[in-house]
Amino acid sequence: MNQTMPFLSDNAAAVHPRVWEAMRAADFADNPYDGDALSAQLDARFTDLFGRECAALWVATGTAANCLALATMCQPHGGVVCHEEAHIEVDEGGAPGFYLHGAKLMLCADAHGGEGAKLTPDGIAALIDPIRDDVHQVQPHAIAVTQASEYGRTYSAEELAALSAFAKARGLGLHMDGARFANAAAFLGGSAADAAFGVDSLAFGFIKNGGMSAEAVVLFDPEAAAQVKYRRKRAGHLQCKGRYLAAQILAMLDGDLWLANARHANVAALEIAGGCTGRLMHPVEANELFVRLTLREREALRAQGFAFYDWGADAARFVTAWNTSAEDASALGKAIASL
Amino acid sequence: MNQTMPFLSDNAAAVHPRVWEAMRAADFADNPYDGDALSAQLDARFTDLFGRECAALWVATGTAANCLALATMCQPHGGVVCHEEAHIEVDEGGAPGFYLHGAKLMLCADAHGGEGAKLTPDGIAALIDPIRDDVHQVQPHAIAVTQASEYGRTYSAEELAALSAFAKARGLGLHMDGARFANAAAFLGGSAADAAFGVDSLAFGFIKNGGMSAEAVVLFDPEAAAQVKYRRKRAGHLQCKGRYLAAQILAMLDGDLWLANARHANVAALEIAGGCTGRLMHPVEANELFVRLTLREREALRAQGFAFYDWGADAARFVTAWNTSAEDASALGKAIASL
Amino acid sequence: MNQTMPFLSDNAAAVHPRVWEAMRAADFADNPYDGDALSAQLDARFTDLFGRECAALWVATGTAANCLALATMCQPHGGVVCHEEAHIEVDEGGAPGFYLHGAKLMLCADAHGGEGAKLTPDGIAALIDPIRDDVHQVQPHAIAVTQASEYGRTYSAEELAALSAFAKARGLGLHMDGARFANAAAFLGGSAADAAFGVDSLAFGFIKNGGMSAEAVVLFDPEAAAQVKYRRKRAGHLQCKGRYLAAQILAMLDGDLWLANARHANVAALEIAGGCTGRLMHPVEANELFVRLTLREREALRAQGFAFYDWGADAARFVTAWNTSAEDASALGKAIASL
Amino acid sequence: MNQTMPFLSDNAAAVHPRVWEAMRAADFADNPYDGDALSAQLDARFTDLFGRECAALWVATGTAANCLALATMCQPHGGVVCHEEAHIEVDEGGAPGFYLHGAKLMLCADAHGGEGAKLTPDGIAALIDPIRDDVHQVQPHAIAVTQASEYGRTYSAEELAALSAFAKARGLGLHMDGARFANAAAFLGGSAADAAFGVDSLAFGFIKNGGMSAEAVVLFDPEAAAQVKYRRKRAGHLQCKGRYLAAQILAMLDGDLWLANARHANVAALEIAGGCTGRLMHPVEANELFVRLTLREREALRAQGFAFYDWGADAARFVTAWNTSAEDASALGKAIASL
Repeated sequence: MNQTMPFLSDNAAAVHPRVWEAMRAADFADNPYDGDALSAQLDARFTDLFGRECAALWVATGTAANCLALATMCQPHGGVVCHEEAHIEVDEGGAPGFYLHGAKLMLCADAHGGEGAKLTPDGIAALIDPIRDDVHQVQPHAIAVTQASEYGRTYSAEELAALSAFAKARGLGLHMDGARFANAAAFLGGSAADAAFGVDSLAFGFIKNGGMSAEAVVLFDPEAAAQVKYRRKRAGHLQCKGRYLAAQILAMLDGDLWLANARHANVAALEIAGGCTGRLMHPVEANELFVRLTLREREALRAQGFAFYDWGADAARFVTAWNTSAEDASALGKAIASL
Repeated sequence: MNQTMPFLSDNAAAVHPRVWEAMRAADFADNPYDGDALSAQLDARFTDLFGRECAALWVATGTAANCLALATMCQPHGGVVCHEEAHIEVDEGGAPGFYLHGAKLMLCADAHGGEGAKLTPDGIAALIDPIRDDVHQVQPHAIAVTQASEYGRTYSAEELAALSAFAKARGLGLHMDGARFANAAAFLGGSAADAAFGVDSLAFGFIKNGGMSAEAVVLFDPEAAAQVKYRRKRAGHLQCKGRYLAAQILAMLDGDLWLANARHANVAALEIAGGCTGRLMHPVEANELFVRLTLREREALRAQGFAFYDWGADAARFVTAWNTSAEDASALGKAIASL
Repeated sequence: MNQTMPFLSDNAAAVHPRVWEAMRAADFADNPYDGDALSAQLDARFTDLFGRECAALWVATGTAANCLALATMCQPHGGVVCHEEAHIEVDEGGAPGFYLHGAKLMLCADAHGGEGAKLTPDGIAALIDPIRDDVHQVQPHAIAVTQASEYGRTYSAEELAALSAFAKARGLGLHMDGARFANAAAFLGGSAADAAFGVDSLAFGFIKNGGMSAEAVVLFDPEAAAQVKYRRKRAGHLQCKGRYLAAQILAMLDGDLWLANARHANVAALEIAGGCTGRLMHPVEANELFVRLTLREREALRAQGFAFYDWGADAARFVTAWNTSAEDASALGKAIASL
Repeated sequence: MNQTMPFLSDNAAAVHPRVWEAMRAADFADNPYDGDALSAQLDARFTDLFGRECAALWVATGTAANCLALATMCQPHGGVVCHEEAHIEVDEGGAPGFYLHGAKLMLCADAHGGEGAKLTPDGIAALIDPIRDDVHQVQPHAIAVTQASEYGRTYSAEELAALSAFAKARGLGLHMDGARFANAAAFLGGSAADAAFGVDSLAFGFIKNGGMSAEAVVLFDPEAAAQVKYRRKRAGHLQCKGRYLAAQILAMLDGDLWLANARHANVAALEIAGGCTGRLMHPVEANELFVRLTLREREALRAQGFAFYDWGADAARFVTAWNTSAEDASALGKAIASL
């Protein structure tokens, strides 16, 4: 490994030791395909975590998790309302078009009333009300929010309650892309239930947070759960040795490792934020920082060994992870403060 | 773990120790998402193995591997000729319909001239010639064979050459489902090149043979390879920590572990076959046995601790794996012989 | 027009004069796109005809009518049970795969208990029960029957009641392909309600029966009706001058022209059947005859000016239409009798 | 018919008498399904009209015509670049998502360098260059332009030549939505060849211009033509009495009726434009006018018997047709001038 201090993304971090242990232990698990003892524990464990009945299935990517859930609530001729910078719109290579058979992503902008890539009931209404019942226009079937948002913002339980009530009133499903759900929940106080308040489904991300290859699709609607079992198989995502995926997730749930890891990353992000006074594009509510930095400033940081992505012409994005060292975070904060 | 002697399937066997080691080592690999150093080695390694230029991408399941390859050679309005008992038809939960956007599987039976779920040029011609150029009928775009077949039979290089020539003459693609490709290659003499002679693409299975969660899509057509990169992402199969999948495959290729594992399983199958005189439905050419056994006989075997699937009303299927113990195989062969 | 006596198909017959009149009159109809006064009458007219609440939309082909209805009852990951010789399987160029996004047609044979391409509850159960709840297998979502069947057989109200009860018990939708629904209804006594007893949707064919380019999708489930409105648009089947299609259908309903036309065709078929003693493959219950005839016999008939299709190597299919002349029918019956 | 002077849309106008005549004559045409003598003439007639080899097939709607052509040049995992106000994006109920199996519409705005919903090579480059070869982003496969554009603007042969060269250089297909192609060609001087210069396919609209239910998909690429034949069937758009659609198109081509009708509509539009000094949002280059009018002004016009659509809060759209009377056009022009 090189000496770079890595703030590119949490999505390439190493796997947590306790996850490795759990996977190795699964070698000897009771293991028939599609009925192993580890996978069978997931429903109960997530029901426990969220305090409401749900089913949970592992899949190998967040893209699949999001799309499988959305497919249960949006027919091919319908649409999914999301933010114009939502990951499902801009970064999943057209996966929603594939899984939803050509359903349309209907895009809200911050200009519609949101902030930091967050949606609001009013913003959604402004988008969908003018086309209501117009047969020439794709009609919305579902709403997708991202927790934490694409700019590292979080939805409070109150905000989610409002979105959920709005969705129900309009007959729309409500899905949450939780690639960094753990970081959002950590910021919001640690309650998974609050951080997913009122949603019909959640793609609960573990891979960015210490896992290797397992995310959970959590379905609070039993009919959707029944469907996803078949849709996952059909999408080539039912792994015959799925017990190794279940093992990863169970390890993350055991002793709330998911929360501890996320808190670690969030703390590192706040440490960095301390050096970014006046430069932050968005409040830091999870483990991502969007920082105004000139080209020259970014060059200076890279020269000091910091790795990160540019964000447009005048900013950079820094992401912390479960294994970001306190030293690296502190060094970055100071480096930015000294620019 | 219970005391059962497991012949249910190779798809749930433990992961090989050398695969585990390689995965752990990948924790420290040079690791940017979608450009890691391990995944970058695959094209060259498979080109070397097959002795002809190819690209290779990991995916988590054979279902995805088959479907991604087929999608490059069959348009949504076309069809894929396969055996009526082909895994893609009977066991993948409709995945080809999903990945190929409703393309049709056009089914050949053994009655069309094949044997043990193998296809022949004449059998295919009998199926597709009568509907040629009929706009009311789906036209074939591709052929899919399984190596080893669903009944554990193999295609020789000569048989593949004939199928390949036929496919080319008709303008059809030729794909090989190689869930047990290693076992077929081992039986045929150990040459991967021969066992995949003339095909345009191959789903090279590692999971049943000691891997955990990585199969390879091998594409001998550069245009197809360019497409699959995008189609894999779109199907939610581009894993951000894909280096752990590349590591599994590389471990299997190193020192021809894939071949050694397959030979082990094949030897175990032959050991069992020795006890099955007069009972075998198909010659044993890989690691599966289809054995005529009455209900009472099967009950007797189960009472002795052997686990396996029924195959219809009058037979059973036994599958050996890389970790089948010589004792278990010998015991099973003797138990059947003593019935 | 040549002197051939046409028994090839009813699908290319001329348009009935009353249909022409109605279309011309629509030039002056109150005509805003997607809300014209003629199309607006359809729901009430069909509700009246069937004696139960329904919605009805025009489309240009039976293929589209069948597929739009089926799409409301079969999710992309599900299957539609139909006869192995069903038109949707063998003659629609893969349209169900397109409209149902890769859902699977699950094929029953006569060997499953049917007769003349008709389905029975027992036959369907034999097909679907063994795979129930198997995630590796596509699960059925709907059943499609053809009235009259592909061999000109009809389903009685009692038979439909049994199928409908079976479908409900299994949670399956029941669709009827009624390309020759009028002929079936005429044979069954003239009641549209009886001929579509218990079905959830019907593709009611008018084109083979004197129309030009309008079939009706009749939906007895209000939710399906709401969907089809959008699905039709999405499939490019919402015609801006749809009033001309509504006009065709209304003309066919006025004074029961649909029934009179069908009776005419059926009478002609029976006239021909009179000459076919010992040669009929199936009882004549609509306007199609499947007649055992050697190659030489068929040549002899063609030499006399009769046009028709071969049906395999040893038979021919004859179809009568609303405009088949009594002379032609009588001549054909006599010609066959004289062979 | 009420007394309203109709400027809502050309899409609901009556059918031209010569089209009616041709349809009636087709009752007696040589008429086997899928091989009738009228449909067989289309390829040659359009090849003649455009002065380059092409194939032409009828379909019932412009939506189907556009989507069938686009499906030949854009794979499901690709994208089609079009204007953000393109009809395929905003008014076809998601049809491209259906026909292209979830391919993405990639939206250019006028802000990208266009004007009046027209695309330019530079604008397209600005959209697609930044994401080139990024596997997380859908890559463009085709470009779709509208002639006349959604704001009634036309592309000159020179502008099309530039777009065509750009498309070829990038390996993209170039499709033209020609719902009002006749009006554009009339404006540009009457040459169909010029108005479709360099495109790979054209949806040539006849329905808004005096036809009833037939548009032509014109394919300048022979491989695409071979595909569309099958895709049309699969989409339920192969009508068994297709000769009536061919008859409509042939009637429109005979004696250049298409051009005469379009010129009539364009003249009427210019007549109205004469009264709109200072109010036009776009130059009038076809048969549509976008006119700045306050709510009160629009109310005043409606009170005088003019029917038209609002265009946002401060404008109205007026469309003329082949049968717009000179009196109505003159009256509207004067009424606006007098506001």
